Amino acid sequence: MSNPKVVVIGGGTGIPVVLKALRKEKIDLTAIVTVADDGGSSGRIRSAVNIAPPGDLRNVLIAMSDMPKFYADILQYRFDKSDGELAGHPLGNLIIAAVSEMQGSTYRAIQTLAQFFHVEGKIYPSSDAALTLHAVFKDGHEVLGESHIASYKGLIDHVYLTQTASGDSPVASKNVVKSIMEADTIVLGPGSLFTSILPNIVIPEICEALWKTSAKIVYVCNIMTQRGETEHFSDADHVRVLNEHIGTKVIDTVLVNIQEVPEEYMNTNKFDEYLVQVDHDFEALKAEEVNVISNNFLELRDGGAFHNGEAVAKEIVAISQRQEFRH
Amino acid sequence: MSNPKVVVIGGGTGIPVVLKALRKEKIDLTAIVTVADDGGSSGRIRSAVNIAPPGDLRNVLIAMSDMPKFYADILQYRFDKSDGELAGHPLGNLIIAAVSEMQGSTYRAIQTLAQFFHVEGKIYPSSDAALTLHAVFKDGHEVLGESHIASYKGLIDHVYLTQTASGDSPVASKNVVKSIMEADTIVLGPGSLFTSILPNIVIPEICEALWKTSAKIVYVCNIMTQRGETEHFSDADHVRVLNEHIGTKVIDTVLVNIQEVPEEYMNTNKFDEYLVQVDHDFEALKAEEVNVISNNFLELRDGGAFHNGEAVAKEIVAISQRQEFRH
Repeated sequence: MSNPKVVVIGGGTGIPVVLKALRKEKIDLTAIVTVADDGGSSGRIRSAVNIAPPGDLRNVLIAMSDMPKFYADILQYRFDKSDGELAGHPLGNLIIAAVSEMQGSTYRAIQTLAQFFHVEGKIYPSSDAALTLHAVFKDGHEVLGESHIASYKGLIDHVYLTQTASGDSPVASKNVVKSIMEADTIVLGPGSLFTSILPNIVIPEICEALWKTSAKIVYVCNIMTQRGETEHFSDADHVRVLNEHIGTKVIDTVLVNIQEVPEEYMNTNKFDEYLVQVDHDFEALKAEEVNVISNNFLELRDGGAFHNGEAVAKEIVAISQRQEFRH
Repeated sequence: MSNPKVVVIGGGTGIPVVLKALRKEKIDLTAIVTVADDGGSSGRIRSAVNIAPPGDLRNVLIAMSDMPKFYADILQYRFDKSDGELAGHPLGNLIIAAVSEMQGSTYRAIQTLAQFFHVEGKIYPSSDAALTLHAVFKDGHEVLGESHIASYKGLIDHVYLTQTASGDSPVASKNVVKSIMEADTIVLGPGSLFTSILPNIVIPEICEALWKTSAKIVYVCNIMTQRGETEHFSDADHVRVLNEHIGTKVIDTVLVNIQEVPEEYMNTNKFDEYLVQVDHDFEALKAEEVNVISNNFLELRDGGAFHNGEAVAKEIVAISQRQEFRH
């Protein structure tokens, strides 16, 4: 019996903790990573070099590699704030940028670096070109650029993508659709709903593949609401927004954390985008026709509330084994 | 019998061809590399980040590593001219810069990267701080900065160094003096006399070690004269200038190329700093009390005249074996 195929879709700050845990499991692991980031170092790089933004890919590459911590620290090392033209760039971003430009493709660069750093599994940027995220708010206002969305006051109605260079509709990069179609389990998140997960899903080919695949689709629901993104969202709201963007109720299972975050634990200066714990609305979840796995998925560290990668991975593996058995 | 110890001193465009050939020989190989470069990418990096310039070290690191050519190409890859703040930086320079800043020392960064890239032998920056090269011309005029020296019209009388940050006299980095003292053979060059070789030698501790060491000191004389540096220099002039800077006639042996460079071969647009072939002056060499090994050391490639690394390495190994036997 071959290993179950698990595809994780999201961005570079949310999914690494789960990928790191899944990497050790007996599964075929694939990560599909957003390329719509336009803030910070990634934003500066994509405006200087004509490539997909490297930041999310860097974090996923490190999470899925067996490199010693010392080398991970080197790739994560950021040039000092006082370093002029280099200030604030993580070295790993510059490496991905250089190899992308050299090979004429971020997709190819990631395959090269994944091999170099002994990545177990596959990493695909969701598209091989830099994308622009558009958020249309309930009031009709539209904001361009992932990094500007949270600062507009209002409720997001929906997001969509264009190719930054051409303005055209985005296309999925090689093997992305194939890996979704062949998967036993698709994992969405964890991560920012509108700015990390949806910027993969609203690529039309990916959206269509999520309709068509026979894989179980599992959503790892956020623990906290996010400022300017998911304020006052219940877990059911998260699932509903995903299903609305995909166009049908494709989410089979949602992982919901039921462990309380001690209010006094959160370092609200450091993690100022996180507001309050996501409310449970099991009635509304039922309306989304989704299986709910409630458990303690919480890990408190560094003054923040995160998913416990091991606990999430354990559920994903269990779901994948059941799913594969069914085939 | 242990392997003969060979120390090669110079800069990043001259010595790599010899290091690459020596790496395969049964010797203990050490490279001592100048950190006085202040032009191009290295110049921009040392002014943005408070570290020794990485360019020469990058080339030596690649020459002494067993990395596949594809990885060498990645480290040598330069961001495109149109890439804004990153334009023109070779990726390898950015890696050395980041690791230097992270570890607080270019010396340590090079040891880290040498291990990572399986360098056979040792690589030491001649100093662990960025240095400023000063050239005092025969007319008394002084030019600061390695990259500005060639453009001043005049004959260089001598060069000296200061620490760029403090203005103090430069200090040799760890293990540099020790490796010179323990060497069987010291190889100076090949490379630019005033801007690659002497910027190591005029560090007072290194100069003193060259006086004191019992190693044979071999100078690999340039094939061509260089604009603004060694115009009209004979081979004996090169040796004399070295001995004058060191303060005594320490050069034991000079390797002199006697193969003619076909005038029509040279691509004078590409290699506009090279002028004419260095003249031989065997009488004047005698006055420098130096053994002369004349041979065909020429390699013509890419429209330029270079040393044949294998031929130079063969002579160095032969000298080293004789020297070690004598001990």
